[in-house]
Amino acid sequence: MDKNLTSFIEVAADSDFSIHNLPYGIFSDTKTQAKADNRRAGVAVGEYVLDLSVLESAGLLDLAGGPYFNQPTLNAFIDSGRDNWQKARATIQTLLSDADSTLRDDTELQKKALFKQADVTMHLPVHVPGFTDFYSSKEHATNVGTMFRDPNNALLPNWTEMPVGYNGRASTVVVSGTDIVRPSGQLKPNADERPIFSPCKRLDFELETAFVVGKGNQLGQPIAVDEAFEHIFGMVLLNDWSARDIQKWEYVPLGPFNAKTFASEVSPWIVTMEALAPFKTSCPTQEPKPLAYLNETATDTSFDINLSVELLPENAESATVVCETNFKYMYWSMAQQLTHHTITGCKVEVGDMMGSGTISGPTPDAYGSMLEIAWNATKPVTLAGGETRSFIEDGDTVIMKGYSEKDGVRVGFGEVRGKVLPALSFDFDH
Amino acid sequence: MDKNLTSFIEVAADSDFSIHNLPYGIFSDTKTQAKADNRRAGVAVGEYVLDLSVLESAGLLDLAGGPYFNQPTLNAFIDSGRDNWQKARATIQTLLSDADSTLRDDTELQKKALFKQADVTMHLPVHVPGFTDFYSSKEHATNVGTMFRDPNNALLPNWTEMPVGYNGRASTVVVSGTDIVRPSGQLKPNADERPIFSPCKRLDFELETAFVVGKGNQLGQPIAVDEAFEHIFGMVLLNDWSARDIQKWEYVPLGPFNAKTFASEVSPWIVTMEALAPFKTSCPTQEPKPLAYLNETATDTSFDINLSVELLPENAESATVVCETNFKYMYWSMAQQLTHHTITGCKVEVGDMMGSGTISGPTPDAYGSMLEIAWNATKPVTLAGGETRSFIEDGDTVIMKGYSEKDGVRVGFGEVRGKVLPALSFDFDH
Repeated sequence: MDKNLTSFIEVAADSDFSIHNLPYGIFSDTKTQAKADNRRAGVAVGEYVLDLSVLESAGLLDLAGGPYFNQPTLNAFIDSGRDNWQKARATIQTLLSDADSTLRDDTELQKKALFKQADVTMHLPVHVPGFTDFYSSKEHATNVGTMFRDPNNALLPNWTEMPVGYNGRASTVVVSGTDIVRPSGQLKPNADERPIFSPCKRLDFELETAFVVGKGNQLGQPIAVDEAFEHIFGMVLLNDWSARDIQKWEYVPLGPFNAKTFASEVSPWIVTMEALAPFKTSCPTQEPKPLAYLNETATDTSFDINLSVELLPENAESATVVCETNFKYMYWSMAQQLTHHTITGCKVEVGDMMGSGTISGPTPDAYGSMLEIAWNATKPVTLAGGETRSFIEDGDTVIMKGYSEKDGVRVGFGEVRGKVLPALSFDFDH
Repeated sequence: MDKNLTSFIEVAADSDFSIHNLPYGIFSDTKTQAKADNRRAGVAVGEYVLDLSVLESAGLLDLAGGPYFNQPTLNAFIDSGRDNWQKARATIQTLLSDADSTLRDDTELQKKALFKQADVTMHLPVHVPGFTDFYSSKEHATNVGTMFRDPNNALLPNWTEMPVGYNGRASTVVVSGTDIVRPSGQLKPNADERPIFSPCKRLDFELETAFVVGKGNQLGQPIAVDEAFEHIFGMVLLNDWSARDIQKWEYVPLGPFNAKTFASEVSPWIVTMEALAPFKTSCPTQEPKPLAYLNETATDTSFDINLSVELLPENAESATVVCETNFKYMYWSMAQQLTHHTITGCKVEVGDMMGSGTISGPTPDAYGSMLEIAWNATKPVTLAGGETRSFIEDGDTVIMKGYSEKDGVRVGFGEVRGKVLPALSFDFDH
């Protein structure tokens, strides 16, 4: 990384979108153009979006097998392979650098290719064929086990042997900014009575990241752990919205279903693994040593990514930070997750999203869900305006942010933001 | 249903594909044409496939918004709506009837439009955006609970309150005829020792059906139970391949994952709900009465469909029937499953497949999995050639069949057939 590299576009020191980042997203400029849905690919730089379809049309971004960017998803570009990922990044970085005159001195081209982020609408960056959620934070699994099972045996025996995961629901992966209608379903408030149908009373967030699969495999052909990292294109922030009371009643024996399938909300910009490479770090020590199929040769298989959650009640003057944690606390690496996912021959596909699981750190201020922060509603959190929260209330907005920083270079994710709307009213006439 | 309706095409009395059926599938005729992959839609009739793209080109099947059938999946046709489903069925039935001369007397058209099923290759009939598996046979859930939990409390308390389900893996829904490589993964043979990495030793089938979603919903908008049936296009047979030993070690607390995601195999022909309508019957009595959101007005919400499983070991002279059961034993209806799935606002999409769960009947000869048939390996089954089985061995072929029959009219599914190949060999050099 050349940390002296700068762009002719002004980038604030605290911007997530430095020239070292260049995350990919899908945007439409409904605010400046008449056409309703003109989705295409861009990269974020400072407060701008650079329209890659314009660069492509102008012959400045000529990728093998292209064009790729005048499309409503990034899947075709991602599927075109690592050589194209590298060429695109290098080309875009050069075009944005203040040492290169091509875009810097062409104000006409700039006018066509640069949009203020404030003037565009962001969309889901990829079509998501499959969504899987892991459970790879030891602190989170321990906290949940302590609250709901046995504090002395909080971790289940399989937890240290495999990256436990489950299939999520791809159809409800939504982009940041999507309002979340409070789900209704079956709750069981009294052990001795039948369940009731009710709006969820324990609505929660889960602070996660997700990686985007960049290269699939064939059915029946597992991905070796030392090759798995090459199958990952990039990462996003993920708020894995959860209905704790629905979950508690439904999840034995087949796992969470209705409690999770109403919305999984992601940040719009995919930060590439290339941009994150300078921030590599090691996973926590894995003891016992994983079985051979999960045993990685590399040791720097995690990333130092600062993560936070803010709560903003309706009409509040300011948001309150309720969690500050870091991706590096994750026990299992993304490569181990992907290898475990495919070890029985399961096929993964370009655009699949794989959630990390809630990322809790070692201290209470680093817990990644309200369930843990307010410790099963026994320690409500006081927000800036004086309100308290054990779970998420109607009108609350949950904002998750993430960034890496080193030697003055910042590579960030922006945010995933979602507001909770009141539950639907139901009228059952029979 | 006009049971006197007959086709000019000869249909054997025991054929699944009478003129009353007309199931939709995707085929290619690699055996008669040079072009490698010419996938298009057809319906099965007797021993033939009728090529719908040819009828469409000839102007004999003119649907609103079409053409639909010269495509590699049925999604666009299904998505075009119920009016088109009805018109297509009525038109095709007329064209195949011996009372109509259009196709009957046009040998040139017949030559172009009719293929022997033996000469075509069948493919997945739909692109499957989402795959969900329910657990709706009380007998199956009771058997599993009796073996692995507590015979006196075999059913978990939520089971009679909701159609318990979990998210499956859509990417590994495969069509009948796909070979199944025995999966490898983590097994825990000894409680006091660490798990081992090994080929699955308890490979099993699960006899299921799946329904195909014909009409989706909007995110946040549940489908009312009395409207849910209208969202279903048709049904297929499903062999939900399961690795029992992998499942046992991995599934607490988040449910089955690697144990199921290596393959879910379906029959190639989608039998429509219209074709199945004459075979409606009631679900078992639901006690307690379901909560209002699951409480259906209609009472004939199940179907009388005979189902069977045959095992054919490699080199065996004949297959052995190991299970004969019926779809009507399912406790929860498909409408209830779909409503429960969407009650929190989860979006479902055209082409989604929703598995019934293993369909076990009340007696041991009606159990829908080897786990139950051989009662956790305590009662091995003797096959026709004298071999015994507790689970599925390498080289075994599992064949599932299904049909409805009433007043001399037969509407069947054909079969889903899968052969098990030996596990991969792994070489971990670290």
